[in-house]
Amino acid sequence: MIQTDILIIGAGPTGLFTVFEAGLLKLRCHIIDALPQPGGQLAELYPKKPIFDIPGYPSVMAGELVDNLMEQIKQFEPGFTLNEVADTIEKQEDGSFIVTTNRGTQHQAKAIAIAGGLGSFEPRKPELENISKFEENGIEYFVKNPEQFRDKRIVIAGGGDSALDWSIFLAEVASEVTLVHRRNEFRGALDSVEKVQELKHLGKINLITPAEITELHGDDKLTAITIEKEGEKQIFETDYFIPLFGLSPKLGPIANWGLEIEKNAIKVNNALDYQTNIDGIYAIGDINTYPGKLKLILCGFHEATMMCQSVYQRINPGKKYILKYTTVSGVDGFDGTRKEAEKAVVKSID
Amino acid sequence: MIQTDILIIGAGPTGLFTVFEAGLLKLRCHIIDALPQPGGQLAELYPKKPIFDIPGYPSVMAGELVDNLMEQIKQFEPGFTLNEVADTIEKQEDGSFIVTTNRGTQHQAKAIAIAGGLGSFEPRKPELENISKFEENGIEYFVKNPEQFRDKRIVIAGGGDSALDWSIFLAEVASEVTLVHRRNEFRGALDSVEKVQELKHLGKINLITPAEITELHGDDKLTAITIEKEGEKQIFETDYFIPLFGLSPKLGPIANWGLEIEKNAIKVNNALDYQTNIDGIYAIGDINTYPGKLKLILCGFHEATMMCQSVYQRINPGKKYILKYTTVSGVDGFDGTRKEAEKAVVKSID
Repeated sequence: MIQTDILIIGAGPTGLFTVFEAGLLKLRCHIIDALPQPGGQLAELYPKKPIFDIPGYPSVMAGELVDNLMEQIKQFEPGFTLNEVADTIEKQEDGSFIVTTNRGTQHQAKAIAIAGGLGSFEPRKPELENISKFEENGIEYFVKNPEQFRDKRIVIAGGGDSALDWSIFLAEVASEVTLVHRRNEFRGALDSVEKVQELKHLGKINLITPAEITELHGDDKLTAITIEKEGEKQIFETDYFIPLFGLSPKLGPIANWGLEIEKNAIKVNNALDYQTNIDGIYAIGDINTYPGKLKLILCGFHEATMMCQSVYQRINPGKKYILKYTTVSGVDGFDGTRKEAEKAVVKSID
Repeated sequence: MIQTDILIIGAGPTGLFTVFEAGLLKLRCHIIDALPQPGGQLAELYPKKPIFDIPGYPSVMAGELVDNLMEQIKQFEPGFTLNEVADTIEKQEDGSFIVTTNRGTQHQAKAIAIAGGLGSFEPRKPELENISKFEENGIEYFVKNPEQFRDKRIVIAGGGDSALDWSIFLAEVASEVTLVHRRNEFRGALDSVEKVQELKHLGKINLITPAEITELHGDDKLTAITIEKEGEKQIFETDYFIPLFGLSPKLGPIANWGLEIEKNAIKVNNALDYQTNIDGIYAIGDINTYPGKLKLILCGFHEATMMCQSVYQRINPGKKYILKYTTVSGVDGFDGTRKEAEKAVVKSID
């Protein structure tokens, strides 16, 4: 069982920054996320797009903001359970919670911070018979580890940036890359569209449009798919089929935790600490709602910070916390590192 | 009379970021500050010190954060009234306010955002007879414009970074720089102490320690000072005397505006919009207080953002505001500039 002080559900910017503010209070964090990497929407949906409203950044690429947050929190050694969805929660007699994921991983924590953004991002799946049978047996909805596809034949389906970018990337890894899209037109960054065009002409990407995958074949493992192009069906041998049709956020199992929900978001006490109707469970960032709520990253940062103070009081009842400025006190990492401002010297001049 | 939508009192990080969030809502801002430059404490007290708790910045120099905020808001063309202190406020029949500074500059605005930090920074003045008579007649508490001292004789008093740094800087500008400190030891960055040592040996800084200035001389204008060193008094001719004994924050005239004050801070409604007890006057950042208040820059950013929404409703009653993400909608400046994410193309591949 993974033990921590604050179990954070959601590794988006709000969840990540929580680790920093908790660390300043000597509280340890562990993060669960449904996606294969930290960063939430920023990493998965628009890593190369600029954000203009992060205070102090006239412009920052979403992926760069995630990298900076990861750098900022690394000294507080957060744990991660990635690729898993928080499924059930049980309150223990000592006031702690046990959260179990869809894969059975158990986490025990003194407080829960739901920083789930719009919900857990689930892949949009094509409607194909037997598709669940082949999941992880030839069908992947994310490219978690590109090496998995080394020297394999793969078919990617989709018409957006993910389909374009992974086709380009895997053209150098897989033995054969086929990109199937139901239209002739792709929608994505101009660079990516042009690169796929070039790789097609070099014979490194096999392009089939307008076409759709209509059937899956194989016993335990996927061995072939049916591609239907302009009414003609063709059975096509492949090791992997990777449908990249985008992600759809779902509140998911959290909806059954007994939390007060309003407009698909979790109601919190914004006048104090962003706690939900369940004592010890907080909701911060885009997933919460309160009068005047704005779904902005900078608001999530504030909510995370206020929440950590409340958790501190919960874990250290009666202990008075004195706010220290990082410029003055420095930052001591759990890994033994220390960041601090250069000290002034007291020195006579002769 | 200066006219604006939101009159911001205080050009610290919270006040500056307000301009950005207001700008997204097409509201114009003007800022009053007692200091000669924007940035508040960050620019005046610790520009070269790192801050570690700005979200997304593992470390940022305070001065750099101010520069970045100025860059982020410039497209929204904020106005500045610097070197002046907001003195009186009068509510008009149309609901607007007129704020007059200590120098008589008048500003009319539909809403007031007090982002005054710890208060307006006032210089700690030495206790010398007639000192007020010589203020701006030979005595300066800030170096607003170094050129003012070109080829003049100056005496700087103080033992901290400001005294050291301005002595170094002005050694190249003034005809004669004398640095007086009541102790032999200076307290500052090692670099600065060493540089002053070097300039002293080169004869570019005249150092008198341990000593104090005890008298001021001159008719309308300062012409000389008395320096007392180890019991011996010496009359010393000079064009300028610059005491740099630090700044002390004072709530100042705002304390008389009828606002509800608690522990030297302004009480606000944190459950909604950080409005004070006076309709149309908001307080954001370190100057406000509410249950659980944390005096952190990142909290000021959030408060500024929530406040701008409230001002928008105040100025546009009944108009529904749809939150737009800057990544999706881009940012249109009042100066005609536009920042936006690169657009996706829709393009066929042949």
